[in-house]
Amino acid sequence: MVDLYNFIAKRTDRMKASEVREILRYAKGDVISFAGGLPDPYCLPSEDEICSAIDYISKFKEKAFQYSLTGGILELKEEIAKYCGEKLGIKASAEEILITTGSQQALDITARILIDQRDYVITELPTYIAAIQAFSLFRPNYLGIPMDDEGMKIDYLESSLRAMNEEGLKPKFLYTIPTCQNPAGLSMSMDRRRWLLELASKYDFIVVEDDPYSQIMFRDIQVKRLKSLDTEGRVVYLSTFSKIYAPGVRVGWIIADKSILNYYELAKQSIDLCTSSVNQYFVLHALQSRIIEKRLPAVINKYKIKCELMHKMLEEKMPEGSKWSNPVGGMFIFGWLDERVNTKKILMDVIQKYNVAYVPGGSFFVDGSGWNTLRLNFTFPTEQQIEVGVGRLAKAIENELKKL
Amino acid sequence: MVDLYNFIAKRTDRMKASEVREILRYAKGDVISFAGGLPDPYCLPSEDEICSAIDYISKFKEKAFQYSLTGGILELKEEIAKYCGEKLGIKASAEEILITTGSQQALDITARILIDQRDYVITELPTYIAAIQAFSLFRPNYLGIPMDDEGMKIDYLESSLRAMNEEGLKPKFLYTIPTCQNPAGLSMSMDRRRWLLELASKYDFIVVEDDPYSQIMFRDIQVKRLKSLDTEGRVVYLSTFSKIYAPGVRVGWIIADKSILNYYELAKQSIDLCTSSVNQYFVLHALQSRIIEKRLPAVINKYKIKCELMHKMLEEKMPEGSKWSNPVGGMFIFGWLDERVNTKKILMDVIQKYNVAYVPGGSFFVDGSGWNTLRLNFTFPTEQQIEVGVGRLAKAIENELKKL
Repeated sequence: MVDLYNFIAKRTDRMKASEVREILRYAKGDVISFAGGLPDPYCLPSEDEICSAIDYISKFKEKAFQYSLTGGILELKEEIAKYCGEKLGIKASAEEILITTGSQQALDITARILIDQRDYVITELPTYIAAIQAFSLFRPNYLGIPMDDEGMKIDYLESSLRAMNEEGLKPKFLYTIPTCQNPAGLSMSMDRRRWLLELASKYDFIVVEDDPYSQIMFRDIQVKRLKSLDTEGRVVYLSTFSKIYAPGVRVGWIIADKSILNYYELAKQSIDLCTSSVNQYFVLHALQSRIIEKRLPAVINKYKIKCELMHKMLEEKMPEGSKWSNPVGGMFIFGWLDERVNTKKILMDVIQKYNVAYVPGGSFFVDGSGWNTLRLNFTFPTEQQIEVGVGRLAKAIENELKKL
Repeated sequence: MVDLYNFIAKRTDRMKASEVREILRYAKGDVISFAGGLPDPYCLPSEDEICSAIDYISKFKEKAFQYSLTGGILELKEEIAKYCGEKLGIKASAEEILITTGSQQALDITARILIDQRDYVITELPTYIAAIQAFSLFRPNYLGIPMDDEGMKIDYLESSLRAMNEEGLKPKFLYTIPTCQNPAGLSMSMDRRRWLLELASKYDFIVVEDDPYSQIMFRDIQVKRLKSLDTEGRVVYLSTFSKIYAPGVRVGWIIADKSILNYYELAKQSIDLCTSSVNQYFVLHALQSRIIEKRLPAVINKYKIKCELMHKMLEEKMPEGSKWSNPVGGMFIFGWLDERVNTKKILMDVIQKYNVAYVPGGSFFVDGSGWNTLRLNFTFPTEQQIEVGVGRLAKAIENELKKL
């Protein structure tokens, strides 16, 4: 047999982060897993909704099962434009919208059309792991900006930009999940949002606003999407129906200035020709029949209860010296343990001896830090699993600390 | 407003081929278009089939609307393995199969994981335009091999390989659509298939076999897939349900040695996390209920009639000096006109004055030739449109020749 490994392109050395995946394969059977990122099954479409969707889709059968336009089905783009205006405070025309195959595709295309090797990309510390994976393939330099309870520290960002500027350097874009962030569940304050856009204008870079979770907010915070504050066409807005309708349809969308959206469309042509037409009709039906907005309050309530339960359990049970983010929404709690604990190193042990799993936080940091951090998902496990699982985790970490 | 064009990565200069797309936007209203690549609407799933599919999917609702594994749903991979064994003569286990978001994604990932800049990629002359687009992003060198009625000229390939070898050069992979080729509808003879694999072994390169059309064969030719002849794990096999079930579900699959399939899976993670679970269940239902094999004979018959009609019309009506491929299957006829005719230059004129459209063939050639060629689709237009459209095309080319 030929050794195909010899044919693999050099850039694949950037396709990493699979070590953790390999370990997580052991999280089976009795293991309670906080490692995933799945919605509660309760929040998926009901049987009635599926049947009503398929009645609708049958009517458009010749379109729904056929190829469709690369940029997306016009009726869906119009319906999303309406939804964004009514629910998200973003004014956009159908022409400024592109349908993507999940939001992950939007991240992949962003990397592909914006990143030249050694370009500077700015992210939060920590940030979404799969965004880092998508960007890294094109070998950028990263600048990570720490966060606190009000999101990315913009004063820190400003000093960094000033320092870069003095060296004649300029970032290509800043990637942020400003609302209900993944992995920390925090939101950027309004003051910082405005300040961030001022800096983007002053130092001339693009802001990529990733917004999958803002509709699942537990607290009564008024936030405006960066895109709605954008007066210069500088913000590229990404969102998805994965968390508000169903991940299984893989439908997301981009809102951006037409000049840049053309490049997204051009790239998408050679990536998948078009997003599944059937799935675009599923989403179109969900928007038109207002399934999403009717179900959202119950989803929010369910996630709020689970999040508060997990947070309370963590505060009560986990050993001293650990710190937990207090999410305003989203699907995750992020934790910082005693600095002597390496969460990646102990993961296999924790799974096998304590029957509980998490994602080590290091992969969420573009600067190589975060070895003592971890991300916990609270939406997929049941309340009982949250109670039992956090107990197991506490015991695991306690014993780990004793060993030191 | 900021000029976002300034931020676009250098590699996007390879995202071309849109000039023809722009012209084809004018192919509306009364224009008969042979430019597309869509199945006949008659060949899409029937309403009964859709309803029965959704009954099935409802039962698996919590899986079908949820995220699924990056490599694909196991039951579907097992069903595909069975189908490939029974219908395509390819023995593969579920572990050697990866589900992709349409076959286009397989091409995109192939480029991403195999091509380092300036690597040599070998293709047929002409070859599938969107494969060239996907590959070109990673800046390979191309070697185009001419075809005749028996497919790629392997004697020509052998001399080229020998010449390359003498210069110390080696191709990374050879991309071929050996059966019912796009754009020419031709098939590689069995002798040449064996010879090709011998050369692949001797000169040590990968063979990427793209096989979307082989199940839509009009003639009684016995061909074996290259993958079924592969004794060294050297062939990467790509196929899709777009032409045998429905393009709107965007489900394709790869069969390859596990050592390379791992890289496909790793790349897919950061591209779209997973292929739509709903759509995987649509296909799983179609395979299990044997919808595809029951419908295929009618599809083949329909396409055969249309293909023969178009070919007859072309032979009768088109001016002397033009030559047409005689497809054994697939969806397209390819044509060579008088060498003085530039099919791209006259396209706008032909659309606007003669109300008929085609794809200029130049973009199917990796060596810059083929300016006098064109591709015609016969599956989507009706028989009447084929008759009228070819008449219009003949008149257009005749008048063009008179101008010379």
